[in-house]
Amino acid sequence: MRQKAVVLLSGGLDSATVLAWAVKRNFAVYALSFDYGQRHRVELTAAAELAAAFQVQKHVTLTLDLRQFGGSALTDQIPVPKDRNLNESPAGAQSIPVTYVPARNTVFLSCALAWAEGLNCFHICIGVNAVDYSGYPDCRPEFIAAFEQTANLATKAGVQNLGKFSIHTPLISLTKVEIIRLGLSLGVDYSKTVSCYDPVPGAGACGHCDACQLRLAAFNSLGIADPTRYARNPAGNSTLAEP
Amino acid sequence: MRQKAVVLLSGGLDSATVLAWAVKRNFAVYALSFDYGQRHRVELTAAAELAAAFQVQKHVTLTLDLRQFGGSALTDQIPVPKDRNLNESPAGAQSIPVTYVPARNTVFLSCALAWAEGLNCFHICIGVNAVDYSGYPDCRPEFIAAFEQTANLATKAGVQNLGKFSIHTPLISLTKVEIIRLGLSLGVDYSKTVSCYDPVPGAGACGHCDACQLRLAAFNSLGIADPTRYARNPAGNSTLAEP
Repeated sequence: MRQKAVVLLSGGLDSATVLAWAVKRNFAVYALSFDYGQRHRVELTAAAELAAAFQVQKHVTLTLDLRQFGGSALTDQIPVPKDRNLNESPAGAQSIPVTYVPARNTVFLSCALAWAEGLNCFHICIGVNAVDYSGYPDCRPEFIAAFEQTANLATKAGVQNLGKFSIHTPLISLTKVEIIRLGLSLGVDYSKTVSCYDPVPGAGACGHCDACQLRLAAFNSLGIADPTRYARNPAGNSTLAEP
Repeated sequence: MRQKAVVLLSGGLDSATVLAWAVKRNFAVYALSFDYGQRHRVELTAAAELAAAFQVQKHVTLTLDLRQFGGSALTDQIPVPKDRNLNESPAGAQSIPVTYVPARNTVFLSCALAWAEGLNCFHICIGVNAVDYSGYPDCRPEFIAAFEQTANLATKAGVQNLGKFSIHTPLISLTKVEIIRLGLSLGVDYSKTVSCYDPVPGAGACGHCDACQLRLAAFNSLGIADPTRYARNPAGNSTLAEP
């Protein structure tokens, strides 16, 4: 019997690549998305399309209104930064941007764990990335290792030694360019993915937030036009992606 | 300025006691409850009453439908066990009951962490208990320690050394009798609490599930009538609590 895996699927470039990776690894995939009050809710449509395209066993979208807690540009009234020079403000402890959502990956992984345990599944896959990442603490390998240990202590499955939970992070040491290369080799249709933190309703990605900039620069390096629909001319360093 | 604490408040006996403990410790309390599809949703009314009685700063009830995952008698169609002999089936790794909700405390603590970080708060209080507990893996000290470590790696606050998260478990080594004694000394009105896993709608606690039995036995030992309203005669070993 195929092993099961819960894949956290936001609908962005990274999680789409992880989904393709899990399918390639022959996991029976259970995809989990969150409607957490994010301003870029359009990513949920992308997640549903990706889940269908990769024929997952089941796709669940959990509603969890993190807006009740506040504190992030992704869920609050705080403006999303645009056209930051990402080369001059290196990711790291001192430069965590306002798009950071407090403890988001901890919450997402916990819910994935809850589903996994009910499914008798010991594999959880998440598209965190420690290279091109935006300085989020919950994308670092030491966080993932700590969560994995917690998962094995938290659960009936862990206590009864029915299996050991593994948190898979296939992108953690890849650059954005390497991620896209991997995804293309696995058949990911990146036109289906949405990375933008602040999309223009009905028109597409903004082209200027950190997520758009990172993505555009990577496609640019590869000499490939980013198939995402942009609402207006994206950031200047990505001429190939301009319409 | 008073330190803040997020208190996980189910509305049961244990979390009510923790709430009183946190207030006594002079924390500015932010109470967090979950509407997770539990069959004993009446506990949410109890939580609101307790939050008001202890004049918390804010009480948030997050909706998170764990029924989508299934796998527990508390959220699924699985019957809640009644009149189990809890003395003959000691709690432990081999006897985790069907009322266990997969990874519930991990999910709850993660959400508490998300709120705490947004509040610039480093204290999280949870009423887990390793003595009279029902054999749940996520009530053990080793789980709590692992989660605390994860919390400090997961967060901007942790990375930037703004503070260190502490998970407070004031009940972890107390018996149910000791918990009630503590709560009474702190002014908890236990008539406001609901522990039952399977209450009779409109009528009260069942008196026969594990949670009712543990509670009744403890009040019995103390020679105090349990002020909870029971739908029918509770379990036989608790004559004092009978109407």
